[in-house]
Amino acid sequence: MPTINKSRCFVTGGAGFIGSNLVDRLLDLDCEVVAYDNFSASFPEFVASAKGNERFTLVNGDILDTELLATSMAGCSHVFHFAANADVRHGLEHPERDLQHNTIGTFNVLEAMRANGVPWIGFSSTGSVYGEPEVIPTPENAPFPIQTSLYAASKLAGEGLIQAYVEGYGMRAVIFRFTSILGERYSHGHVFDFYRKLAADPKRLHILGDGKQKKSYLYIQDCLDAILMAVDRCEDKVGIFNLGHEDYVTVDTSAGIIARTLGLSPEFTYEGGERGWIGDNPFTHLEIKKMQALGWQPKVSIEDAVAKTVRWMQGNEWVFDQRQ
Amino acid sequence: MPTINKSRCFVTGGAGFIGSNLVDRLLDLDCEVVAYDNFSASFPEFVASAKGNERFTLVNGDILDTELLATSMAGCSHVFHFAANADVRHGLEHPERDLQHNTIGTFNVLEAMRANGVPWIGFSSTGSVYGEPEVIPTPENAPFPIQTSLYAASKLAGEGLIQAYVEGYGMRAVIFRFTSILGERYSHGHVFDFYRKLAADPKRLHILGDGKQKKSYLYIQDCLDAILMAVDRCEDKVGIFNLGHEDYVTVDTSAGIIARTLGLSPEFTYEGGERGWIGDNPFTHLEIKKMQALGWQPKVSIEDAVAKTVRWMQGNEWVFDQRQ
Repeated sequence: MPTINKSRCFVTGGAGFIGSNLVDRLLDLDCEVVAYDNFSASFPEFVASAKGNERFTLVNGDILDTELLATSMAGCSHVFHFAANADVRHGLEHPERDLQHNTIGTFNVLEAMRANGVPWIGFSSTGSVYGEPEVIPTPENAPFPIQTSLYAASKLAGEGLIQAYVEGYGMRAVIFRFTSILGERYSHGHVFDFYRKLAADPKRLHILGDGKQKKSYLYIQDCLDAILMAVDRCEDKVGIFNLGHEDYVTVDTSAGIIARTLGLSPEFTYEGGERGWIGDNPFTHLEIKKMQALGWQPKVSIEDAVAKTVRWMQGNEWVFDQRQ
Repeated sequence: MPTINKSRCFVTGGAGFIGSNLVDRLLDLDCEVVAYDNFSASFPEFVASAKGNERFTLVNGDILDTELLATSMAGCSHVFHFAANADVRHGLEHPERDLQHNTIGTFNVLEAMRANGVPWIGFSSTGSVYGEPEVIPTPENAPFPIQTSLYAASKLAGEGLIQAYVEGYGMRAVIFRFTSILGERYSHGHVFDFYRKLAADPKRLHILGDGKQKKSYLYIQDCLDAILMAVDRCEDKVGIFNLGHEDYVTVDTSAGIIARTLGLSPEFTYEGGERGWIGDNPFTHLEIKKMQALGWQPKVSIEDAVAKTVRWMQGNEWVFDQRQ
């Protein structure tokens, strides 16, 4: 495989947390980049620096708008499909959202690729597709899982569609199963929730579940190192890679790092129960040997990733104002 | 679990091959049965005998018609969701069909269940979700597969949705991963194709692939014995069961049985290649130990199942006239 350098790349969700960081990295690799985003969970500020680059194009569009999607993709050789409804916790309140934005949205992206003759897709899937796995750390070829959330079910459906398109239409794909990603431009998830709660009441932090849930996190630049390495080095027709960290921490530990970084010593209180919400997994830890075999290794510790995230939020509190 | 006898059951695809046979069995168990079918691949003749039963209701409706679907399901305690686009071979010619009828259709059925408070669903999935498995015979907890057809991808998406609904909304489900089913009312698949080719030219039979593909088949009444047993005996929140046969045959063997049953000795010619079409699997054989552990065992041999199918077709050639 030639490197992705200087390619014309299409990034759905290109103004989101992971997508916009990817855009910056692709621009650094001399790529032309078209970011496609509906700004439902993204921010113009995240692509403010990219906008100064003449190789960057921003399209304000929805992946459910099949016509705009197809015309915007013209001339691209690589699609990074990172747009998604990522609201895992509240999926049950509006079950059609994951279906629409994640499953049908992925179908639309694949059809636009077919219409434009784009041969390659990178896809942001999730470690949640393993449900509550028997094998931990969980490898990519874990036993056939049972889904526990609408979000993961919709991502699994997206994976299946991509795999069938690869087989049926001669495309290639790399599917990334992410653990939770942290770092600059992080804008939803537990660090966000804890930060906001502590801003409202610095003396007390209420935690969903019992605080003993074990979670693994990966720093955004480590994540992007892996993605760009896999794009260049994966030789499989469909490459599937877990992106995670060898370490994990409890929710209590993570809350402690957040509080310390903020210089606070709140009392922790607990909602109780092994799971934070329906579909939460008490122990999430992905095996990353397959990605490591390509030569990748996370450089930033989970503790540093949490602290970096908190510090970014301290400098970007405007994100809170724009979030419900 | 109480038995399903005397329950009010909703059967999508209830005028199709497997669905209509299930309807007859449920009526034999003193159930009330609502069959819901759009007759895109079904036949009024298949529910002709059921229509004589006062416990039977037929609704001519599409699972994409969410309103009719929800009102028709009122008062049912069990949903057997057997409606599907089952045209595996030609999926690539119209990729939206599997998404619409199988994935979105299943979502619609689940939403109709939620609206009506129906707590239980039985789902016709497929052994094709295992792709080209490394482990043969393939157990339900085989390594996480890669999809090779749009049909299987859409069924996998349906499985995931059902599992997430079970977890999120407190339903229960039994998911059946079928091998190819044969028997009375069979109306598409290789026996159908071979029968039709031999009717056109009794001296020659052209076979897709090299004839060495190994396939397993299950007789419809054995299949329904398993389904009804699993409904009564499965105690898991989500039960997943392969439905297949311990034996398998090559396509050549199967073609030979068909020809012999018809009293013909055609010359076989071959399209060539290991696979009959893109997404075809050269070796399909499901492990059935999990279903056997509930006390089930197929009674009809594959040879007898093929011969019974041919004999049914001989007496029902009208099916050909109504099929493209």
